[in-house]
Amino acid sequence: MSERLSIDPAHLTEASGALLEHLRATSPLVHCITNSVVTNFTANALLALGAAPAMVDIVGEAGLFAGAANGMLVNLGTPNPEQRDAAREAAPAAHGAGTPWVLDPVAVGALPIRTALARELLEFRPTAIRGNASEVLALAGAGAGGRGVDASDETDAAGAAAARLADGFGSTVAVSGPVDLVTDGVRCVRIANGDALLTRVTGGGCALGAVTAAFLAAARATDAGLDDLGATAAATLVYTVAAELAAAGADGPGSFAVAFLDALASVDANDLAARARVEVGTLAVQAAGATGAAR
Amino acid sequence: MSERLSIDPAHLTEASGALLEHLRATSPLVHCITNSVVTNFTANALLALGAAPAMVDIVGEAGLFAGAANGMLVNLGTPNPEQRDAAREAAPAAHGAGTPWVLDPVAVGALPIRTALARELLEFRPTAIRGNASEVLALAGAGAGGRGVDASDETDAAGAAAARLADGFGSTVAVSGPVDLVTDGVRCVRIANGDALLTRVTGGGCALGAVTAAFLAAARATDAGLDDLGATAAATLVYTVAAELAAAGADGPGSFAVAFLDALASVDANDLAARARVEVGTLAVQAAGATGAAR
Amino acid sequence: MSERLSIDPAHLTEASGALLEHLRATSPLVHCITNSVVTNFTANALLALGAAPAMVDIVGEAGLFAGAANGMLVNLGTPNPEQRDAAREAAPAAHGAGTPWVLDPVAVGALPIRTALARELLEFRPTAIRGNASEVLALAGAGAGGRGVDASDETDAAGAAAARLADGFGSTVAVSGPVDLVTDGVRCVRIANGDALLTRVTGGGCALGAVTAAFLAAARATDAGLDDLGATAAATLVYTVAAELAAAGADGPGSFAVAFLDALASVDANDLAARARVEVGTLAVQAAGATGAAR
Repeated sequence: MSERLSIDPAHLTEASGALLEHLRATSPLVHCITNSVVTNFTANALLALGAAPAMVDIVGEAGLFAGAANGMLVNLGTPNPEQRDAAREAAPAAHGAGTPWVLDPVAVGALPIRTALARELLEFRPTAIRGNASEVLALAGAGAGGRGVDASDETDAAGAAAARLADGFGSTVAVSGPVDLVTDGVRCVRIANGDALLTRVTGGGCALGAVTAAFLAAARATDAGLDDLGATAAATLVYTVAAELAAAGADGPGSFAVAFLDALASVDANDLAARARVEVGTLAVQAAGATGAAR
Repeated sequence: MSERLSIDPAHLTEASGALLEHLRATSPLVHCITNSVVTNFTANALLALGAAPAMVDIVGEAGLFAGAANGMLVNLGTPNPEQRDAAREAAPAAHGAGTPWVLDPVAVGALPIRTALARELLEFRPTAIRGNASEVLALAGAGAGGRGVDASDETDAAGAAAARLADGFGSTVAVSGPVDLVTDGVRCVRIANGDALLTRVTGGGCALGAVTAAFLAAARATDAGLDDLGATAAATLVYTVAAELAAAGADGPGSFAVAFLDALASVDANDLAARARVEVGTLAVQAAGATGAAR
Repeated sequence: MSERLSIDPAHLTEASGALLEHLRATSPLVHCITNSVVTNFTANALLALGAAPAMVDIVGEAGLFAGAANGMLVNLGTPNPEQRDAAREAAPAAHGAGTPWVLDPVAVGALPIRTALARELLEFRPTAIRGNASEVLALAGAGAGGRGVDASDETDAAGAAAARLADGFGSTVAVSGPVDLVTDGVRCVRIANGDALLTRVTGGGCALGAVTAAFLAAARATDAGLDDLGATAAATLVYTVAAELAAAGADGPGSFAVAFLDALASVDANDLAARARVEVGTLAVQAAGATGAAR
């Protein structure tokens, strides 16, 4: 714990912009095993951002690819039997090869097969776990789960559950909500950017899991000064600021989704500097009140 | 039959607007087992409208979820073996729990596996059946089926087949076409709204099945005065009026699809009142000529 | 070889426009077995163009449908076991029925299961093979394959491999890249149209495979004077000119994808005449220098 990098909002915001540039320059290959509803949007979000997506979700290929990719996502939204076995192949392969990987436990708690699978995959120590409050609570063993992909628990209530997961599996945990929370069990980043329209587009959360894998990959290939917590927070910051840019000119969820892909391609360090609403602290300090805030 | 609600175009149009507001206020959870081509568009259509989509199409979860959801869709567009078994689990669960559910028999008649499955699922008495004329004819045992998702029979020709299905399985049957026809075997609503661009976007018909499930769910949770026939007609009316709003500013099928999602989020009772082209009668009266017409 | 139609850039461009009109008038039914990431975009591209898509990818239906469709695509992007068996059913059925079909060997060379399947399917002599340089090299037995759907070999380097495939299996081979190359092993068409934004949208290459199947189907039903090489080149020309039209007003990859669908619906012979950048020659002549060029 004592070796964790200290972090402050201004530094995080600046380093996020640098990491975004590095990501675009190197185009990390992001392996996705994700649900059938959002494959297209997820691939387009990665392409817009500057990463290279590859959806490889069959047995006999997923493990090979997880070892070769720069980052990986396992999203449990529609886990048919082939995908489940592909995930069982890919997670240990990523873990063994040191490929950073993200687990998105969609609807865990509400539905039994994915809940069991998510617990099984935790053993391969996902670099990051991204979900809404219900899912994080359910994955940590508390809460009854949501009614699908909606969040019915408050983000804050999930802080303790997130810390438990982080401690137990060495993961960074990102809890999506009106204010996003990212923690490694000790340090905690809150990001108040974003727009409600992101919840009116399917894959608004799921694609962030893939983007997080891209940022984790980029951070490991540079010296931008962001560890896994920082890279996960950077992904959330870039993603939610892009959502704000997109919402500004949108007439509804359809035009928002289009503008969001455009914004992922154009968002830059200046946008982050102008818009970031980031707080940094420890979970204990957070519980007691705010700490530093950039804007 | 004698207890069926009477209905007239003006009342239907007004009640459709009220039901739409209720739907947005309560955000019914709509369980979809649908084809791989349109999952994304379907989920986005439901989100835009104000409903909460969840695609749960694996064995071991589909049955559980069908019992808990507010409405359900089974669309047979790409029925792989896992989806077929999930549908076999979900249809009796929905039927048993009283969850209103919609069967969309895509390409039934033209292709054997889905044809057999559709007949099997009919035993669980779908609340509504939505298809084009070819599919409705084929499902009722007449006609040779279309060449896929196209309609090669006229909507009118399917009226008798629709009535047969309605009588046989207690379903409301909606036949899509230039003029949409909705019947419970006795009463018949014709809706002449819509735009040809809706046929140039994949999922233009399929998403209506999901939207119908959302309206059926909403109608059962309110006293807006619409039974299943009315709720199914309301879904068609709202959907096709939204298509008209979208077409007004579209440059082609790509921009139309985007504007359509925006329109699903914005369409309201005033739009319905201004644009509804609805006729109501009985199937027999319909065959002889028009009855009441709102605009 | 001596019976191959001669072809020149001006004629190819003019005949492509005529074939496009014929395609729109007859709306060929295009059977697609394609990957889960791009099904929606592919279907929408075909609909926008004026063709009729049908995604039929299950065992027991795929073979039947391949015999009845006007054209077929097998894309190996996410080849789950059911799709693999469906492809094994559909390819011989298309071959036996004379249905023109396109093989898109996505990521062949990089991943083992699809590589083996692609080699197996070659025996059923695809009418056209469409891939990037890496994939064409790998399918022909040279090169190590790319890192997914990216092209890491130059299009030119793939010329010899393309010719080998063309000779071995009687196929027209289309290699996508900044300059697209289409060859039947002797004659060679190069098309320098397109826009880099097409590589920032998932399915930008995959949908061209489906569009190629539509043009092959249209060419066989008319006397527009284009054989398989000509029809494949026409598909590429129409597709890449539409990309240029779309890019003109796009703000990024999201708005480009929308405008591209609009452009597929509006592109016509005049656009082709104004923008075509086509060279025609033989592979040997091409290697030595340019031949005729239209603009």
